Amino acid sequence: MSCGEPEKELWRDTMGRPERRGEPALTHSELESFLRNEFPQVFKAGSGLSIEEIWHGGAQVRQAYREDFIRPGGTISGPTMMALADFAMYVAVLASIGAVPLTVTTNLSINFLRKPSAADLLAEAKLMKLGKRLAVGEVAIRLAGGVELVAHATSTYSIPSTQDA
Amino acid sequence: MSCGEPEKELWRDTMGRPERRGEPALTHSELESFLRNEFPQVFKAGSGLSIEEIWHGGAQVRQAYREDFIRPGGTISGPTMMALADFAMYVAVLASIGAVPLTVTTNLSINFLRKPSAADLLAEAKLMKLGKRLAVGEVAIRLAGGVELVAHATSTYSIPSTQDA
Amino acid sequence: MSCGEPEKELWRDTMGRPERRGEPALTHSELESFLRNEFPQVFKAGSGLSIEEIWHGGAQVRQAYREDFIRPGGTISGPTMMALADFAMYVAVLASIGAVPLTVTTNLSINFLRKPSAADLLAEAKLMKLGKRLAVGEVAIRLAGGVELVAHATSTYSIPSTQDA
Amino acid sequence: MSCGEPEKELWRDTMGRPERRGEPALTHSELESFLRNEFPQVFKAGSGLSIEEIWHGGAQVRQAYREDFIRPGGTISGPTMMALADFAMYVAVLASIGAVPLTVTTNLSINFLRKPSAADLLAEAKLMKLGKRLAVGEVAIRLAGGVELVAHATSTYSIPSTQDA
Repeated sequence: MSCGEPEKELWRDTMGRPERRGEPALTHSELESFLRNEFPQVFKAGSGLSIEEIWHGGAQVRQAYREDFIRPGGTISGPTMMALADFAMYVAVLASIGAVPLTVTTNLSINFLRKPSAADLLAEAKLMKLGKRLAVGEVAIRLAGGVELVAHATSTYSIPSTQDA
Repeated sequence: MSCGEPEKELWRDTMGRPERRGEPALTHSELESFLRNEFPQVFKAGSGLSIEEIWHGGAQVRQAYREDFIRPGGTISGPTMMALADFAMYVAVLASIGAVPLTVTTNLSINFLRKPSAADLLAEAKLMKLGKRLAVGEVAIRLAGGVELVAHATSTYSIPSTQDA
Repeated sequence: MSCGEPEKELWRDTMGRPERRGEPALTHSELESFLRNEFPQVFKAGSGLSIEEIWHGGAQVRQAYREDFIRPGGTISGPTMMALADFAMYVAVLASIGAVPLTVTTNLSINFLRKPSAADLLAEAKLMKLGKRLAVGEVAIRLAGGVELVAHATSTYSIPSTQDA
Repeated sequence: MSCGEPEKELWRDTMGRPERRGEPALTHSELESFLRNEFPQVFKAGSGLSIEEIWHGGAQVRQAYREDFIRPGGTISGPTMMALADFAMYVAVLASIGAVPLTVTTNLSINFLRKPSAADLLAEAKLMKLGKRLAVGEVAIRLAGGVELVAHATSTYSIPSTQDA
């Protein structure tokens, strides 16, 4: 009643040393092309989403400020941050396993920690496990230029088996 | 290291009997007015969101089908369902405590269970706990007319104390 | 970025009608024998755990009161309820797919809702999804004889593929 | 529908610099005395639990290997790791706010990432938010001497208000 499955190596720091970031499975521009073709409703002009950096095991993405994200009191809506966390995790998975279109979120759990003010959001996703069937990661969301977390998510992605393809 | 706080009574079935649904803290039209005023970016013409039923301890809401929700393979996006779960839970909290604008989501955890096809979604939120400071509920999302769950969420809302107001 | 996989049918009520409980994949005594052999540290004399009922898609289990579960204030500890939720979910999975020893928990999320008093706990687990690779369920924990939830959990189990066996 | 409340400062690194660890709210021996008095069923001789380090905003605790934690295949049980995550988080909260006995877990969500072998476990808890009413943290569990995560949890604690005391 506890878990495990065979997995690919993650170049991820876990002891406080500077993280060694491995080569992503596809280039930045290959990833953008894939997203524009496969997810045109998400990754499109006007969405405000952009990919800042990718590496094997993680990604940093940005959500530019948009007025329709705002809630009373000038804070950014919860669903905006949930969608951003999901996107960051998806980009991290693709950066680690390549352009596998049928990869799907199975679970996302998010804690809203502080009210973000009206500014761009940065989300950094790191995979904690990259197995053959499941990828599990965490996502830290901050205001651009900020230090404190505004939200933190964990998420699990299901990876289609090669036999299924 | 386990939890409790004083709470208001919930008229919620927990033993398989037909649920006794208590009077909501505000009427359906009062709730809609509140949402239109306080959350115009969410609850507006064109959003496709509507409130089907409210009662003390719960709510059923509908998300009409919109083409921009669709992902490759004809399935509805994860963020659409996360936003719907959050909205359903918010309506259930308001139906139970009245129009308290500063109520905020602190946590949302969602499992995506089946790929929904292109149709309206119904979300039913039920509070499992309604304390003075926290409300905890679950949300079941199904296709309109469908029986099986397409997603299931649990969420916690923080209720401002009357001293804070 | 939303989820799905082929699945076996669940005889689970989802519309408020009395639940139709299908035949479990193994008998009550087969399940107990399996647990005694495979999990002697958990399912043993003195544990206080017993299986009340199993069916296809669910299970009800009991944790008898034990003095070492108690915390200051006379309440039952959080870890006791987490272990019970995990056990209930495991029994529900076995009741639905048969005695598959390598089935493992991948995620468990629990909300502690009320302080339980010193009494037996009943946990009812229901599968919301039973796929080839993943089972997802929810667990409701109450005091024996009580109506209100003291805790609520959702959990995901990974099922080994037949090719792996 | 997103979150925030006033909070005390956390001396927590969030930008990859070495973490600045502030003074805990009570000493190591004060904390141990408190736990021995308030939680004798948990923190006792033979439990195998010990506190390695505490600071403002976090803690590292150890669970010594015990044979009764083992599952078939030689792996440590899920409930052992859930209890350890809860304990680590509790110690981190006490280290940050002092000996407040009525602090209670409201939510714990754990991902089991790898099968741990038979060895001591180390759990490091870090608070991501320390508000007046809620503390939210994450816990990383590794084998002693190991680098990779075997489990990762997030948890929320409710802090009694001074008016309630």
